[in-house]
Amino acid sequence: MTIINEQFTINTAGNTDIIDITKLVQNCVYQQELKDALVCVSIQGSTSAVTTIEYENGLVQDLKEALERIAPSGKEYHHDEIWHDGNGYAHIRSALMGSSVCIALKDGLLNLGTWQQIILMDFDNKPRSRCVTVQIIS
Amino acid sequence: MTIINEQFTINTAGNTDIIDITKLVQNCVYQQELKDALVCVSIQGSTSAVTTIEYENGLVQDLKEALERIAPSGKEYHHDEIWHDGNGYAHIRSALMGSSVCIALKDGLLNLGTWQQIILMDFDNKPRSRCVTVQIIS
Amino acid sequence: MTIINEQFTINTAGNTDIIDITKLVQNCVYQQELKDALVCVSIQGSTSAVTTIEYENGLVQDLKEALERIAPSGKEYHHDEIWHDGNGYAHIRSALMGSSVCIALKDGLLNLGTWQQIILMDFDNKPRSRCVTVQIIS
Repeated sequence: MTIINEQFTINTAGNTDIIDITKLVQNCVYQQELKDALVCVSIQGSTSAVTTIEYENGLVQDLKEALERIAPSGKEYHHDEIWHDGNGYAHIRSALMGSSVCIALKDGLLNLGTWQQIILMDFDNKPRSRCVTVQIIS
Repeated sequence: MTIINEQFTINTAGNTDIIDITKLVQNCVYQQELKDALVCVSIQGSTSAVTTIEYENGLVQDLKEALERIAPSGKEYHHDEIWHDGNGYAHIRSALMGSSVCIALKDGLLNLGTWQQIILMDFDNKPRSRCVTVQIIS
Repeated sequence: MTIINEQFTINTAGNTDIIDITKLVQNCVYQQELKDALVCVSIQGSTSAVTTIEYENGLVQDLKEALERIAPSGKEYHHDEIWHDGNGYAHIRSALMGSSVCIALKDGLLNLGTWQQIILMDFDNKPRSRCVTVQIIS
């Protein structure tokens, strides 16, 4: 058995930018030509997150609106009282959504549904460069 | 070290059906007769999720009501404007709850609390057949 | 390849106590002197959770207030009608937040952002002793 640590970097627009990273993850995994593996996708940073969703424009907008209700960007946060960077909401969204997701590789294919994509979410209130790690245990 | 990929399929009633899959996961794991392992439970599909909870009728109802407040089924979603399948809320709940959970196997036992069960949630607005993957790294 | 199962126990104050466990996780991982590994942090129990956040007093308070809006402690829960332990909200928060997080070890360092810490959350309505498992796959 081996562990393979792959990484890629993405420039985001911030402000709850939601980016489909499925193909980038697939590239990391499929070049290994493995049959069965555990694939763990994780993101570095306290104002970003990863999860899966059907990536289409309507749902991307729905997810942004849901997060706006759950952790509103216009609300006052204690974090901003001291740090004045105006991104308290971004930290809360990140803690709620989580920074890692595991996907099975089965018979050489990532075990995603037909309409299920892996997404990176950048909640920070400015453009950022984000590093995603894809760990492949096989 | 080895990776074992086990799978099972469950027919659900949809409509935020919440099903205790602890015994099915235990069956996959305990037949291997391992001492220490990482067990990763993941589900395929963009309208379902897995997590852990104390599985009793009151809490199952409480979780349904909490998700109804967080991502209401009666609200209009952009997803439904185009796709007309009426399950926008189901996709949002899935993205929020997540599609994988990792549990430690320690001294031959899954490291769950006495009142902690592994659940599958099917948010789609119709019955579905769901495939769960149990990966055992040991 | 090997799997290492480390554990530590923490006494909490309950009542959505939020504790920075980064150093305790680092201690488990760094004593192994590994280069690349998958690190999975999981917690046992149905009224607790783990995630990552920038651990500073303002955000800790913000996260408590966000969870109070998402799953209010003052609301009536079906769980409490039967079990009368008054912690229905704690179970719902635990199911929403999740009981595991995976972090990459890359070139001997845990792949956390500068302002990103691993936290244990104890939602139960009384002090508890909590067992955290750190699994290191390398």
